[in-house]
Amino acid sequence: MGAKSFLVSATIFYLLLFGCFATAATPSGKRILGRTPCKRLVFYFHDIIYNGHNSRNATAAIIGAPAWGNRTILGGQNHFGDLVVFDDPITLDNNLHSTPVGRAQGFYIYDKKDIFTAWLGFSFVLNSTEHKGSINFAGADPLMNKTRDISVIGGTGDFFMTRGVATLETDSFEGEVYFRLRVDIKLYECW
Amino acid sequence: MGAKSFLVSATIFYLLLFGCFATAATPSGKRILGRTPCKRLVFYFHDIIYNGHNSRNATAAIIGAPAWGNRTILGGQNHFGDLVVFDDPITLDNNLHSTPVGRAQGFYIYDKKDIFTAWLGFSFVLNSTEHKGSINFAGADPLMNKTRDISVIGGTGDFFMTRGVATLETDSFEGEVYFRLRVDIKLYECW
Amino acid sequence: MGAKSFLVSATIFYLLLFGCFATAATPSGKRILGRTPCKRLVFYFHDIIYNGHNSRNATAAIIGAPAWGNRTILGGQNHFGDLVVFDDPITLDNNLHSTPVGRAQGFYIYDKKDIFTAWLGFSFVLNSTEHKGSINFAGADPLMNKTRDISVIGGTGDFFMTRGVATLETDSFEGEVYFRLRVDIKLYECW
Repeated sequence: MGAKSFLVSATIFYLLLFGCFATAATPSGKRILGRTPCKRLVFYFHDIIYNGHNSRNATAAIIGAPAWGNRTILGGQNHFGDLVVFDDPITLDNNLHSTPVGRAQGFYIYDKKDIFTAWLGFSFVLNSTEHKGSINFAGADPLMNKTRDISVIGGTGDFFMTRGVATLETDSFEGEVYFRLRVDIKLYECW
Repeated sequence: MGAKSFLVSATIFYLLLFGCFATAATPSGKRILGRTPCKRLVFYFHDIIYNGHNSRNATAAIIGAPAWGNRTILGGQNHFGDLVVFDDPITLDNNLHSTPVGRAQGFYIYDKKDIFTAWLGFSFVLNSTEHKGSINFAGADPLMNKTRDISVIGGTGDFFMTRGVATLETDSFEGEVYFRLRVDIKLYECW
Repeated sequence: MGAKSFLVSATIFYLLLFGCFATAATPSGKRILGRTPCKRLVFYFHDIIYNGHNSRNATAAIIGAPAWGNRTILGGQNHFGDLVVFDDPITLDNNLHSTPVGRAQGFYIYDKKDIFTAWLGFSFVLNSTEHKGSINFAGADPLMNKTRDISVIGGTGDFFMTRGVATLETDSFEGEVYFRLRVDIKLYECW
């Protein structure tokens, strides 16, 4: 065993160690992970809110409203207080009539009087040849902003234990009945 | 220091390093952790929905419904749009009358017209000699499936910072008033 | 290469490795991280519930209630079943009139008949010179306890991918209209 080959080994060890340190958690829990997603997925989902006349096509309905509101039409004051439950088709492109790859299921609540903004809790339940499993989301959606970031808080199946950030963008809307959202899902924890 | 003993040391280092790499995060955030839970717990919880006649025993109530629904009886179209809040006893076995070890508190929303499926947000608040603390859950519950996976999104007390997957199973039900769920909690992040 | 210098190197390697092992995930997913927060923040938020007479000042409103309740006044049985949506100012001190550093947006549901307790899902949307981004929370709030722990389930912007525990404390209240909560946010995962 010569000094030279030992140095080579030592260098390799050092690099390995450095790699380990650079990515693992430190005792304070602070992790210095890169911000490159380990998985990235883009989907669209399509929300058709019941308005009293579209029960055949509707994928969402108002189920809570403040004392001054009602559950057939989204209310005044930027819909403040309206709680909407949804079961929306998810597609790979922006066409409502494309074959769905899953369903977006959950709720949103308009939570501000002065401006449109909502709080979201929902899941993507994916069931296609490419993906089987669920991704769970939660966060604030200040929907007048072009893009809004919410949290990916967990997942199951193909998305076992995942975490990340999802960027929402209103891709299109028609009146207050149809909304199409583009979701750019960036996963930073993949198991 | 002979070459042989160095090789032995090198091998040990290599194994240690490999172990480290195999479990720590890589720069992209991708973690290659095993899928063996660090903690596993099985509980039952018991949901008795208010139906207008059982206010003494009820542990859950409908508090939101679509324009065509009401809040006394679960509605048509697979209860689509019904929001139920609950505070249910948790037991170690499937007997409603066993001593509770805590309370399951939160809500579910039936979110689909064509089939029974719901979105859940709730906590287990455990308070027994064995466990003190809370476990928080969120996810889609396609309740016609024999088992359904949701996310464990966090915890406090004995379950500080935990994450995992919980498998729900409808253990029993009576009409549309009593539901008993078996929950198999598999924690993969334990602190 | 002498045996002595090898031993020194080996000791350094060992320490590095030990450090790595002490903080990284083990194959079972069990992490042995310290319980010292990587970031700690204290805020106050101010909830003014609509009561039929204060629509100008109200920051929260009842939007769901059980069959026996209404949406103007918090109901009997410890408000069981009342769902409240809020968009509350966040301040650095306990003064409602201090300049807000952001908004607390989300909902709570009173979920128990026998005692005051609620389930919370909400976000801090911070927008000040010091912090830009959101922190997402979920958990049970047994609000008769002096302090209550809920989970930080994710974040965006300055709080990208964060996790932790937040300790809530009712700092003050006036009747059933004004509540001020102190939130001590302890983040244990910082990216």
